[in-house]
Amino acid sequence: MEYRLIDLENLRKFIYGVFAGLGFNDEECGNAARVLTLSDLRGVESHGCARLHGYVRLVDAGKIKPNAKPFIEREFGSTATLDGDAGLGLHVGTKAAEIAIDKAKKHGSGWVSVKNSSHFGVAVGHVLPALEEGLIGFSLTNASPLVAPAGGKDRLLGTNPICIAFPSKERPPFICDMATTVVANGKLEVAKRKGVDIPLGYAQDKHGQTSSDPSILSQGGSMLPLGGSLNHSSYKGYGLGAMVDILTGVLSGANYGPWVPPFVPFLNQINDSVGQGIGHFVGAWSVEGFMDTNEFRERMDHWMETFSKSSPAQGVDKVRIPGEKEHELTLERREAGIPVHRETWKTLESLDHRFNLNML
Amino acid sequence: MEYRLIDLENLRKFIYGVFAGLGFNDEECGNAARVLTLSDLRGVESHGCARLHGYVRLVDAGKIKPNAKPFIEREFGSTATLDGDAGLGLHVGTKAAEIAIDKAKKHGSGWVSVKNSSHFGVAVGHVLPALEEGLIGFSLTNASPLVAPAGGKDRLLGTNPICIAFPSKERPPFICDMATTVVANGKLEVAKRKGVDIPLGYAQDKHGQTSSDPSILSQGGSMLPLGGSLNHSSYKGYGLGAMVDILTGVLSGANYGPWVPPFVPFLNQINDSVGQGIGHFVGAWSVEGFMDTNEFRERMDHWMETFSKSSPAQGVDKVRIPGEKEHELTLERREAGIPVHRETWKTLESLDHRFNLNML
Repeated sequence: MEYRLIDLENLRKFIYGVFAGLGFNDEECGNAARVLTLSDLRGVESHGCARLHGYVRLVDAGKIKPNAKPFIEREFGSTATLDGDAGLGLHVGTKAAEIAIDKAKKHGSGWVSVKNSSHFGVAVGHVLPALEEGLIGFSLTNASPLVAPAGGKDRLLGTNPICIAFPSKERPPFICDMATTVVANGKLEVAKRKGVDIPLGYAQDKHGQTSSDPSILSQGGSMLPLGGSLNHSSYKGYGLGAMVDILTGVLSGANYGPWVPPFVPFLNQINDSVGQGIGHFVGAWSVEGFMDTNEFRERMDHWMETFSKSSPAQGVDKVRIPGEKEHELTLERREAGIPVHRETWKTLESLDHRFNLNML
Repeated sequence: MEYRLIDLENLRKFIYGVFAGLGFNDEECGNAARVLTLSDLRGVESHGCARLHGYVRLVDAGKIKPNAKPFIEREFGSTATLDGDAGLGLHVGTKAAEIAIDKAKKHGSGWVSVKNSSHFGVAVGHVLPALEEGLIGFSLTNASPLVAPAGGKDRLLGTNPICIAFPSKERPPFICDMATTVVANGKLEVAKRKGVDIPLGYAQDKHGQTSSDPSILSQGGSMLPLGGSLNHSSYKGYGLGAMVDILTGVLSGANYGPWVPPFVPFLNQINDSVGQGIGHFVGAWSVEGFMDTNEFRERMDHWMETFSKSSPAQGVDKVRIPGEKEHELTLERREAGIPVHRETWKTLESLDHRFNLNML
């Protein structure tokens, strides 16, 4: 069997147990379990429990510190810079969201740039707290460099996601969570596992020529910004990825560009650095600052209904609303359990053993 | 001769004169001339004086009101909703930027959603005021529906641009101003004029099949969101275009989706409406709210230097910084004058005659 099912509550407790075993406190463990299971629920396999052993390795290597105390370094009205105290990004991002929400309630919007953090998981994990309060949630993070700028061949940017969520009334919320590359790195890994080619326009070789080889990254290649080729405006995906890098890295005091530390400790890190850790940018707008919330929610439902009922292109089933498929998967997986790939399952088993959890 | 040169100052006075002739006040005329010439200076021919006769037609048709008095309808801390009073978008957008700047100085950031406005020109026109104050500028607008959602075939979105600008120290500022489609509509018009095909992935026919015909829009076709195909993640460009439509249209009380009024009065407008006019969203972040401004500017220069010095792909001259080419063109055109296409020149001549300007 390729996949094995695990119950949501069991997976949550398991992740909690692993981080507790590493010495993280209750709040850190809870946030880690929340964000990682959220990713698995939404079908983003690459950012869920498949990454758990990666976080453990970083903690073992001393790159992520348990019991970190993130603190506000600078603040002015709706804005702040948070120092993540070299803590767990899954937790630090959640603290940033809390500050942004608090500011949005006081000042109409809240914006927290974060430095000295680590991988914060799936970006949607840090917009949901705002969404649950009826606010518009926003989050960005930079990431280790795998992506070349448009027209370039050096790896200078991460897959640098943008996530925004709008509340609705009866319908599921609008949630757009997207890497600023054509595809996420996970798609290359899946193709490699299956032994199939990737479409041209996903990645390029070390000379900057587009390639169908899913292993091209290990041969000095790089991923391509959204657009996929200069002819199809990859400078736009590059512009968006750059915007994310600047708001998260340059503005916060974190590392940026090629200096962003890698997720896996065995990858070489550039010796010098231009800041502290990884950077995030988490924000929230109060709907009430612009429009009566109920009116906005009704307008959102109407917007989504309009798009949902529009005509699909030949060969397409229906026009989807951003976040719709992930919402359906979440409902399904809450009931039926979360499928875990057998390779991932092995890593969970070794963690189960190491921390004496006996939960699998 | 395809193009004729006009001096920047003369073009500015000419545009001012046309709007004055239509009964707009001094501030409106000044903002219109500022934003339209900015577009021509930066090489965005489609949004400069080539559009002047389009604005005139909308005024003639009673769709844009001279001497409008935009007013704040609702406000809370860093956020506000501005009613454009059915005025000229080129002016209303500038007023929104002024409010956002004022709020950023008081609250760390400022966000103005705008309804009851009209076409606001090139998005960069409404981030430059913030940039000139050392702030991070942000602007969005929705536009008449030409774009299908990913997997769809109905025209539901405009080319809905995103513009962000970051201040720098010695280097030109970072300015990313991009439509959320693969290409702007102007590229199709240029191909049509030249009688050449467009690459696949720019636009599709009325069945939702990608097409190389630059006239496909007049046959019920639509433009494609950034990504260009489902396989290359056009749902991301769709997600970004949707985000723009929601922040500008849904949140402000303007029209959204297929209800956004067309730029040309002879296009059919849907009879019912879901709000007032076109919507914008203009914002600013104070750098000081996050980091010492001088430090940020130095980090921006370093970021840009890093990317600028990186290796170009085979066949590419150099890696460009967003806004770099437009900055170079601006310097060049300030000296040498602005090239105006002969078709555009004819429209200017007829306006020169109509308003007795005798300036060409």
